[in-house]
Amino acid sequence: MSDNFTFSKDRLWNRRQLLKMGIVGGGLIGASAVFQNLNAKNNTKVIVPPMEVDTSDSAVKPMQMIRNFDYGTVKQENGRNIREFQLIAGTSTIQLNNAVSYNIWDLNGRIPGPTLRAKAGERVRVLFLNKAGHSHSLHFHGVHPANMDGVSPVSNGKATIYEFDAEPYGVHLYHCHIAPVTRHIAKGLYGMFIIDPPQPRHAADEIVLIMSGYDINDDNSNEYYSFNGLPNHYMQHPIKIYQNQLIRAYVLNIIEFDPAVTFHLHANFFDVYRSGMTMTPSEKTDVLTMGVAERHILEFAFAYPGKYMFHPHQDAIAENGCMGQFEVIAAEEAQKTVNHT
Amino acid sequence: MSDNFTFSKDRLWNRRQLLKMGIVGGGLIGASAVFQNLNAKNNTKVIVPPMEVDTSDSAVKPMQMIRNFDYGTVKQENGRNIREFQLIAGTSTIQLNNAVSYNIWDLNGRIPGPTLRAKAGERVRVLFLNKAGHSHSLHFHGVHPANMDGVSPVSNGKATIYEFDAEPYGVHLYHCHIAPVTRHIAKGLYGMFIIDPPQPRHAADEIVLIMSGYDINDDNSNEYYSFNGLPNHYMQHPIKIYQNQLIRAYVLNIIEFDPAVTFHLHANFFDVYRSGMTMTPSEKTDVLTMGVAERHILEFAFAYPGKYMFHPHQDAIAENGCMGQFEVIAAEEAQKTVNHT
Amino acid sequence: MSDNFTFSKDRLWNRRQLLKMGIVGGGLIGASAVFQNLNAKNNTKVIVPPMEVDTSDSAVKPMQMIRNFDYGTVKQENGRNIREFQLIAGTSTIQLNNAVSYNIWDLNGRIPGPTLRAKAGERVRVLFLNKAGHSHSLHFHGVHPANMDGVSPVSNGKATIYEFDAEPYGVHLYHCHIAPVTRHIAKGLYGMFIIDPPQPRHAADEIVLIMSGYDINDDNSNEYYSFNGLPNHYMQHPIKIYQNQLIRAYVLNIIEFDPAVTFHLHANFFDVYRSGMTMTPSEKTDVLTMGVAERHILEFAFAYPGKYMFHPHQDAIAENGCMGQFEVIAAEEAQKTVNHT
Repeated sequence: MSDNFTFSKDRLWNRRQLLKMGIVGGGLIGASAVFQNLNAKNNTKVIVPPMEVDTSDSAVKPMQMIRNFDYGTVKQENGRNIREFQLIAGTSTIQLNNAVSYNIWDLNGRIPGPTLRAKAGERVRVLFLNKAGHSHSLHFHGVHPANMDGVSPVSNGKATIYEFDAEPYGVHLYHCHIAPVTRHIAKGLYGMFIIDPPQPRHAADEIVLIMSGYDINDDNSNEYYSFNGLPNHYMQHPIKIYQNQLIRAYVLNIIEFDPAVTFHLHANFFDVYRSGMTMTPSEKTDVLTMGVAERHILEFAFAYPGKYMFHPHQDAIAENGCMGQFEVIAAEEAQKTVNHT
Repeated sequence: MSDNFTFSKDRLWNRRQLLKMGIVGGGLIGASAVFQNLNAKNNTKVIVPPMEVDTSDSAVKPMQMIRNFDYGTVKQENGRNIREFQLIAGTSTIQLNNAVSYNIWDLNGRIPGPTLRAKAGERVRVLFLNKAGHSHSLHFHGVHPANMDGVSPVSNGKATIYEFDAEPYGVHLYHCHIAPVTRHIAKGLYGMFIIDPPQPRHAADEIVLIMSGYDINDDNSNEYYSFNGLPNHYMQHPIKIYQNQLIRAYVLNIIEFDPAVTFHLHANFFDVYRSGMTMTPSEKTDVLTMGVAERHILEFAFAYPGKYMFHPHQDAIAENGCMGQFEVIAAEEAQKTVNHT
Repeated sequence: MSDNFTFSKDRLWNRRQLLKMGIVGGGLIGASAVFQNLNAKNNTKVIVPPMEVDTSDSAVKPMQMIRNFDYGTVKQENGRNIREFQLIAGTSTIQLNNAVSYNIWDLNGRIPGPTLRAKAGERVRVLFLNKAGHSHSLHFHGVHPANMDGVSPVSNGKATIYEFDAEPYGVHLYHCHIAPVTRHIAKGLYGMFIIDPPQPRHAADEIVLIMSGYDINDDNSNEYYSFNGLPNHYMQHPIKIYQNQLIRAYVLNIIEFDPAVTFHLHANFFDVYRSGMTMTPSEKTDVLTMGVAERHILEFAFAYPGKYMFHPHQDAIAENGCMGQFEVIAAEEAQKTVNHT
C-alpha cells in the first residue's frame, strides 16, 4: 500500500509549484489576482489580493495556508466520485519565534495539516502513512462506520486507508486519536475537513483560520498560541483582503488545555453558520465562544480600508500569539487589478 | 414529617426490584427488550437492548442510571395531579477506581441523585430529609416562589418540603445550594429534573448522561471526571443501543472548577434542543459547548453497528474519566429480539 | 481639544444631581417611582421601585449604575444627529471589601465606565481625555474605519476623538486596547455601549449587569469578582424590581483570566437576544454561557415576590463576589405607588 505514497516531498504543499510559478520580485504573485471558482455561483468573480509566498522549507507557513485547500484527486468507481487524499505523518522542527524552536509532528510536511475538501455525497478515501516515529491515527469528525473511526493506532512505518461517504456537509476536522490526545493534537496532528454542500454557497473569498496552542514545557498549559500554526504571524504579515468583498472564514478552535476561547473581529460583525452545517446564519456578532474542536463559518465584509485585528477576547491568549490582522485594500485598487488583468 | 421517609433503603434505587426480577445468568436482563412507552406517541415501539445489572451495594452504578427515571408517586388533590418525590441525603464511600475511594454525599443512596421526572402543569412536591451529617438544601432550577428556592439550610436530621408547579417543560436540574456550593455539588448533591412537555416528544430510547468532576484533594481542581458518577465506566461497559433507533440523550454538565466542556459524539451528529425547552432543534453538530449547569436534549441515531466514543473534546478531561462508548447493535439483532418477544 | 473637558468632576456621574434632588430620609428617592420612557412604546408606563442612593465619593457604586445610562448630548450637524460623549480616564482607589483596597483606572470617576447609549443611524463622537498617568485608548466594538478602532495609545494628558456611525444596533462594549489588555481591562477601563434599534423595543425596566474580575496580586488569576464593580454588593443591597414587570437586563461578561462564565437566574427563565442584535429571542434558559466580551439582552419577569439570586454557575466565581439578588416587590405595592403619584 505504501506505493501510494511515492510522491516526493516537493509535492506535499498542495499547489506550491503553482504558486511559485507566479512569483516575481518581492515575494508577491505576479498574476495579480487569484480567482476562486470552485465553490462559487456561475458568473460571479471573487477577487483576492496578491499573496506573499513563503519559499522557506518551514513546516509552518501561515501565509500559504490561508487560502490553501486540498481537493485530493478524483476518480470514478462504479459510476461514483471517489475523492482520494494522501496524508503522511512526519516530524519537523519549527521556530515559534526567534528564540524558541519546537519539535512537532506534521502532516504532509505542514502544521496544521492540509485543509481537505470534498463535496457532499462523494466517497472519500484517505491514504494515511505514518512516518512520524510513533503510533498515530486519523480520526475524522463526520459520519462513518466504527472501523473507519480512526481510534486504532497505526504503527510507525505502517499505512492504512480511511474510507467513508462525505456527509453531511459542514466544517469538520480530523486529528490523531492516540492517547494522550491532548499531546498528539497540540504537537500538530490535526487539520480541517470541509464538506461542501450540494448547492454551492454564494461566491466569496474563502479563508481558513485555525486557532491552536503550544505547550512547549509539557505542563498541560499553553505557553504560545497561533492562528494557522505560527504565533503572531498575521500581525507582522496581515492577511490582505479587498474592501466590500465577502469573506468566508472557516474557523476552527483546536486549542487544548484551555476550555474555550472567543473569536473576536475588530470594527465589524460576522454572520455565524454554526458548524458550517446550515445555509442560513443563526446570529450576527463580533464575539463568538468556541469550545475545543468547535468550528464555524463566519461571513463578513469590511466597508472601510485599513488594518483590523482579530483574536480571542481571552486577551492573555491573544497576547501570547493568537492574534492577527486583516489588511483591507481599497475597492479602487481591486478595480485597477481587475482591469489590468 | 419524617414519617414520610420510612421506606427502606432497598426501595431507594427506583425500579431496582423490577430490574432484579429480570436477571438471568451473566448479569443481563432476560426479558431481552425493555419498552419505554411513558413518553412515546401511540403505537410506536422503542426497542432497547438488554442491560447489564449491577447488583453491588455501591452508590455509584452508571449502568443502572442510564435509563432510570424517578416518576415519584401521583395523587390527586382538589382535582389536580400532585407528583410527590422523596429525597434523602446520606453519606457513602465510592471507589473511583481500584486505588482511590472517596467519601460523598448521596441522594437516595446514589450519585448522581435520581433523575426526577414530571409533566408540565403538574404540582411537584419534594419531601427532603437530610441525613448527611451536615446542613444541606435542594435548589431546583425552574419557576417557583422565593421560599421554595432551596437556598436555606436544612440541618442534619431535619426535613422540609419543596412544592411548586412543574413549569416550564425542559431539562432542568437540582442541587444543594449551601456554601461552598462547589463542594456540595462536587461531593454529590445534584441530579437531573426533567419536565416533559404537554405534547409528548416523539418516541425514542431515552438516556441520561451527567458529566461531573471529583476534586479529591480539595485543591479546587478536579482530578477525576465521569459520566454518571464513575470515571471511565462506560468505556469498559459500553451503553448498548440499537442501530437506527432514535436516541434522546438528556445531557447535563455539572463539572465544577472547569468553566466549560464540550460534548462530542464520534462518527455522528446530533440535533440540539437547547435546555430541552423547545420542540424544534436549533442546530446540528458533533461538538457542543456547555458551561456549568447547562443541559440540553441531544437526538441522534447510528447508521452503522459498532462501538463509538463520546467525551468532552477538552481531551484532558476525557482522559481523566469523562469518556464512554456506545455499542450499536445491528438492526437485524433488534429484529430478532422483537420477533422473539 | 481639552477645552471640551472643562466640566467639573461633580458632573461625571450622569444624573447624579437629579437623583440627589429626590433623596429623602433613609437614602431612598422620595419620588417613589421613576419612569423610563426613552425607549418605550407610546403609552406604556414602566414602573421602577425607589432606589437607594449612594452619596459616597467612591468610584464604585453599583446601586447607581444599575439603571444609569449616559445619553451624551445631541447636536445637529448638516442635518444629522451627532451624539457626543465625554470620557475621562483617571485613577481611583476602591474598597473591594472592608479589608482590601485596590487601585484602579476609572472612566468619568467610575468603574465600570458609563453605559453609553445611542440610536442606530446617529453619528457618535467620543471625546476622550487621558488623565490616568499611563497610555490608554478606547476601542469600541462596532463598525468603524481603522483609524477609529482605538488601538493606538493616547499618552497621559492627551486627548483624542473617536467618531463613527452608530451601527448596527446591539449591546456592544468599549475598553482600553493597550497591552497588556487583560490588565487594562481588569483595572477598570471598560464599559457598555448600547445602540438602540430604529424601532424601540417594547417597554421594560432596563438594567445593566456587568460581570468583572479583580486580579489584585497580578498572578493572572482573579481573587475577586463582581457585578457592576463591587464584590457581593447586590447580595447586601438587592436590586428592587416589581412583580410581573418585564425586566430587560443588558448583561456583559468582561472577566479576564477565566475563559467563560455562565449567567444563572434563580427561580426563573429568561429570553435571550444574542448580542442584543435581534428583535426576536433565540432561546429561553436559566443558564447561559458567555465567553469574555460576550454580551446579551436577557428578558424576564418574576411571578412571585421575594428575593432571588443571580450569579455565574461556576460557583467558585459566584462565591468570590459575582453574586447578587433581585428583591421582587409585590404587584400591590407597585399599584399603591402608582396611585400615590
